[in-house]
Amino acid sequence: MSSTYGRFFQVTSWGESHGKAVGVVVDGCPAGLPLTEADIQTLLDRRKPGQNKYTTARKEGDEVQILSGTFEGKTTGTPISMVVFNQDQRSRDYSAIMDVYRPGHADYTFDAKYGFRDYRGGGRSSGRETIARVAAGAIAEKILGELGVTVRAYASRIGGIDASDTEAVQAFLDQKIAEQDSVGGIVECRITGVPAGLGDPVFEKLDANLAKAIMSIGAVKGVEIGDGFAVAEACGSENNDAFRYDEEGKICKKTNHAGGILGGMSDGSEIILRAAFKPTPSIAQPQETVNRATGENVEIQIKGRHDPIVVNRAVVVVESMAAITIVDALFANMHSNMDGILRYYR
Amino acid sequence: MSSTYGRFFQVTSWGESHGKAVGVVVDGCPAGLPLTEADIQTLLDRRKPGQNKYTTARKEGDEVQILSGTFEGKTTGTPISMVVFNQDQRSRDYSAIMDVYRPGHADYTFDAKYGFRDYRGGGRSSGRETIARVAAGAIAEKILGELGVTVRAYASRIGGIDASDTEAVQAFLDQKIAEQDSVGGIVECRITGVPAGLGDPVFEKLDANLAKAIMSIGAVKGVEIGDGFAVAEACGSENNDAFRYDEEGKICKKTNHAGGILGGMSDGSEIILRAAFKPTPSIAQPQETVNRATGENVEIQIKGRHDPIVVNRAVVVVESMAAITIVDALFANMHSNMDGILRYYR
Amino acid sequence: MSSTYGRFFQVTSWGESHGKAVGVVVDGCPAGLPLTEADIQTLLDRRKPGQNKYTTARKEGDEVQILSGTFEGKTTGTPISMVVFNQDQRSRDYSAIMDVYRPGHADYTFDAKYGFRDYRGGGRSSGRETIARVAAGAIAEKILGELGVTVRAYASRIGGIDASDTEAVQAFLDQKIAEQDSVGGIVECRITGVPAGLGDPVFEKLDANLAKAIMSIGAVKGVEIGDGFAVAEACGSENNDAFRYDEEGKICKKTNHAGGILGGMSDGSEIILRAAFKPTPSIAQPQETVNRATGENVEIQIKGRHDPIVVNRAVVVVESMAAITIVDALFANMHSNMDGILRYYR
Amino acid sequence: MSSTYGRFFQVTSWGESHGKAVGVVVDGCPAGLPLTEADIQTLLDRRKPGQNKYTTARKEGDEVQILSGTFEGKTTGTPISMVVFNQDQRSRDYSAIMDVYRPGHADYTFDAKYGFRDYRGGGRSSGRETIARVAAGAIAEKILGELGVTVRAYASRIGGIDASDTEAVQAFLDQKIAEQDSVGGIVECRITGVPAGLGDPVFEKLDANLAKAIMSIGAVKGVEIGDGFAVAEACGSENNDAFRYDEEGKICKKTNHAGGILGGMSDGSEIILRAAFKPTPSIAQPQETVNRATGENVEIQIKGRHDPIVVNRAVVVVESMAAITIVDALFANMHSNMDGILRYYR
Repeated sequence: MSSTYGRFFQVTSWGESHGKAVGVVVDGCPAGLPLTEADIQTLLDRRKPGQNKYTTARKEGDEVQILSGTFEGKTTGTPISMVVFNQDQRSRDYSAIMDVYRPGHADYTFDAKYGFRDYRGGGRSSGRETIARVAAGAIAEKILGELGVTVRAYASRIGGIDASDTEAVQAFLDQKIAEQDSVGGIVECRITGVPAGLGDPVFEKLDANLAKAIMSIGAVKGVEIGDGFAVAEACGSENNDAFRYDEEGKICKKTNHAGGILGGMSDGSEIILRAAFKPTPSIAQPQETVNRATGENVEIQIKGRHDPIVVNRAVVVVESMAAITIVDALFANMHSNMDGILRYYR
Repeated sequence: MSSTYGRFFQVTSWGESHGKAVGVVVDGCPAGLPLTEADIQTLLDRRKPGQNKYTTARKEGDEVQILSGTFEGKTTGTPISMVVFNQDQRSRDYSAIMDVYRPGHADYTFDAKYGFRDYRGGGRSSGRETIARVAAGAIAEKILGELGVTVRAYASRIGGIDASDTEAVQAFLDQKIAEQDSVGGIVECRITGVPAGLGDPVFEKLDANLAKAIMSIGAVKGVEIGDGFAVAEACGSENNDAFRYDEEGKICKKTNHAGGILGGMSDGSEIILRAAFKPTPSIAQPQETVNRATGENVEIQIKGRHDPIVVNRAVVVVESMAAITIVDALFANMHSNMDGILRYYR
Repeated sequence: MSSTYGRFFQVTSWGESHGKAVGVVVDGCPAGLPLTEADIQTLLDRRKPGQNKYTTARKEGDEVQILSGTFEGKTTGTPISMVVFNQDQRSRDYSAIMDVYRPGHADYTFDAKYGFRDYRGGGRSSGRETIARVAAGAIAEKILGELGVTVRAYASRIGGIDASDTEAVQAFLDQKIAEQDSVGGIVECRITGVPAGLGDPVFEKLDANLAKAIMSIGAVKGVEIGDGFAVAEACGSENNDAFRYDEEGKICKKTNHAGGILGGMSDGSEIILRAAFKPTPSIAQPQETVNRATGENVEIQIKGRHDPIVVNRAVVVVESMAAITIVDALFANMHSNMDGILRYYR
Repeated sequence: MSSTYGRFFQVTSWGESHGKAVGVVVDGCPAGLPLTEADIQTLLDRRKPGQNKYTTARKEGDEVQILSGTFEGKTTGTPISMVVFNQDQRSRDYSAIMDVYRPGHADYTFDAKYGFRDYRGGGRSSGRETIARVAAGAIAEKILGELGVTVRAYASRIGGIDASDTEAVQAFLDQKIAEQDSVGGIVECRITGVPAGLGDPVFEKLDANLAKAIMSIGAVKGVEIGDGFAVAEACGSENNDAFRYDEEGKICKKTNHAGGILGGMSDGSEIILRAAFKPTPSIAQPQETVNRATGENVEIQIKGRHDPIVVNRAVVVVESMAAITIVDALFANMHSNMDGILRYYR
């Protein structure tokens, strides 16, 4: 029961890296949204591997098909089923890891939970699962586009380096590739145009749902909103954002330490969040681990094509999960006060 | 629709700071758990204000009553309703803030969402709402106790200072109180005895649910698991935790950078998480804000009794939300494989 | 996990017949709805026992208190907690049934599920639990009132007799009371003013949710919509409702065999449903049963004050559950098409 | 948000009659269940049209593919995605109904809800949607088989005739076909081997969930449990089922008027339910309706191949929905008391 996200805009992900296909069902998408496969493909292409030397050299077609929920170029309000068939599987590359747990991967915990696993690769924990998230995110972004909301994510740190310093980043990555090692990084996401009042005051806080959405992406080990962990060292007099009337007589904030969310609800300013990604666990260096078949301590060297860094391909996944969460909050918000309900129905 | 947390062990919180009472309904607690009001009160007393000079001087009785769901000292499997009546309300202290939004508070976002609000205090966003969380957390901790799982949270940083250096912390807090200011901090939480395999591989990852649970606590702006944000600067060769057989032939990890969760599922080692709390937004210094009634920019000075730091009282809230989340994952896990189901029913 | 109903307008019921209180938390009620305790009490009084000789002679005050979620006579959008404290408990009447399962009651199944139970009465399965449903239903009916929707339930059959023939009904009930027996009946419910298009085409059909809501009332053994079971003997040419334009150019139906729901969605005509209630299981006649303590077959004679018929008091419960279900469907419907969403947010 | 059923064993249905495919994602199926496409196909073949002269003459391949969630012939605990591609679409048959609402169908309510619809056929309300239910039901029945639970449904009434009197049924159907008319009927379902204690005492009653599951099947207008609507005319002394110890010292009931469910929980005896199906709304006779494009009252004659009776093909759908509901209740039950939880985890 791990595979549905969202209360109103519901995304059900399925599929394994070495199965026949991966896919997603989006239920709760409103009728009348213009939507074609090209809309989805554009976003999917942003997460494709093989785009530069720092992402894996595999060629994946990843051509999405919409199997239901649209008619004459528009959504019908019924579930939208999307599928991407797996093509480049080469399962022979993975046979060595059947009984040997890869450090930093979910192999061991899968066996602990389910008793056994599809040992041919990452399975359900593979990066290919994010195809489902991005396909659903593409729909969410289309809805947001109609409402004037934009979601934009980007790598902000690669290892300890500012991602905008591309020369330093390149040098660093080249060195790590030479060392058969991998590096982590930070993805930042900014959401503009969100009306004030989205989210809820207690458990369904907008930031709580964003935290879950982002932490549910493989390799994420930390999430922060606005000033994030830096608030732990700030004083109230610095951290509080003053309210002011702007020139148009609209209430705004002088600063945005809060990252656009106060008390779990959007305050109308830009929403800012960051996610910390761990280094790709698959590295070619020898690593210590166990063989569950022989019961022995062993060494493993992970072969095959692996990204030295996951951050670049993860950007669009962060964006997608944020977009889905905002759409869900927009829908939830529609029945929060009687005035709005009466306005809708009269 | 903001007030229920959990899929199987469901916690429904209600109540405002200046209403008649705050309370909680815990649904899905198994029958046969020994439970008395004293069990709840013990944990509630840990969050009480007025315990030292750094927490507010209000005297709150906060005596919990169990209204349903127990019989002859044991839970019956039916919903457990708990209530704490509000006693020390002094609503006269709050009349000045009816139209003036307090910076860093949810006053503005409440009005934006609902059109109006109970202006007598924090209302639903008050720290008193955490009574509900802690009362429910006390039950979760009792369940975990039966299963050998322990949850322990503590302040790890006060402002920028190591919380174990109590002299430095005291000097820092005294200075900030003198400055009519407030400070943030970090709460760390460690969970031991969790069996491997809790959580799910995709959206219902154990760390994703912990992130939501913790981020849903007021004033939290960041959550991290294991090495957290530090992984962004680590290499794979450092960050991967090697597997080894221990002396008893059990699989264990040599290190625990992952904080006890791999691929969204517990790996049997200690679960470690940290939450960043912002400084208390209520400070006595004058602050810039707006008056929505007059439409003017104004200054506000927040009077009354407020903690200069929220971290100390928040420790037990973090612990409670973590405990609730682990119980939920333990229940979810029971139907994850056929062997376990057959063992249960035969 | 049995005690929350509704996806958007969420009702969490708690309490046992011989505990301290029964109550309910309504989460998801929009802000700005005028609501006082008197609004709730009016509906609660309709389910009170002791109103005539055919309902039990117990005097129950059943005075409801609203503990949260309202301010200055209006709902605030936060959870509304309502409680009724139990007064007339006389638990001595019930001691004989500690180990002897009452036929037709849930005593045996409670023990089977939970291992033990509060043996002092019906506990969670008591009719007193319906206080929670009616208190929540009162709020739902207020919301529906603002939208021009009316829900009206009434007893249509008492035993095999048309309930409008009050003389025949009285004679029948007097006879059954003399025989120390009880009788069943049928409650019919009609809902007018529902806009077309509420409900969903597949699992969340409006009639499916109404069926669950009504079947979740104790003693209900059947639910039907429109012509109900009679459709099994009808032909398509009779059962299909023809569409016509009325004089105002509005599409309407010439007949309403469908009971206002087509393909799981409301069609704009009156919604009609019926529920079959079994006879009160508590009768004074001797009945065969078992004593779980002695392991013997025994006879039981149930003493105390029991309604010979449950239908009269159940009318308002049916109405309440129907109202709650319609409110939930109204909220769900608000994000079903982009036009409506754009209209709401722009 | 209409397309997911179940809380623990979650079934997400998608697809339209004239789209590319219909399918289903089953999430929450435990790992280790033997499962092949042949297991699914066997049940799907029971709902196929074209099996005798009373069901439609269309040839549908309806070959199911499993796209995820199994490995080496067993389920892996991850979502099971199944798809059936649509082959025989002949959309030209349906063009006449683009603007003319078919009586008894969901055409009108679809337009009312979503603003427009896929007018090429029943779309989401087509009988083809039940492929998803049956494919999921096949998995549920496999789980139940491992636990000794059997679910068996059958037509009990065709029109007003006992379905076992096949000669009378044949004569009746032949007559109705000659009259270009259709007939309704009743499906009965019996579930044996269910342990006592499944279900919950309040909203999540086992009978309430069965009622929703069955009423969510298109064309069902009534659901009853045990004696069902007959209880409305029964006395308590007749309707109460006496408890007795059987020869093996096990508690059993002398009769089963309750249909195996007491107070919302299974009592260990056979669960019996019945569903009333309306006559197929598609009939070749001329019918009155409206044309929304011209705004005129018109007549419609529905061409094409339609079953004169839906009951025969619906049997396996009833069985499937019942099986899914029982599996869900079995899973929910596992965390209902501490003894069971401790037994599971120790």
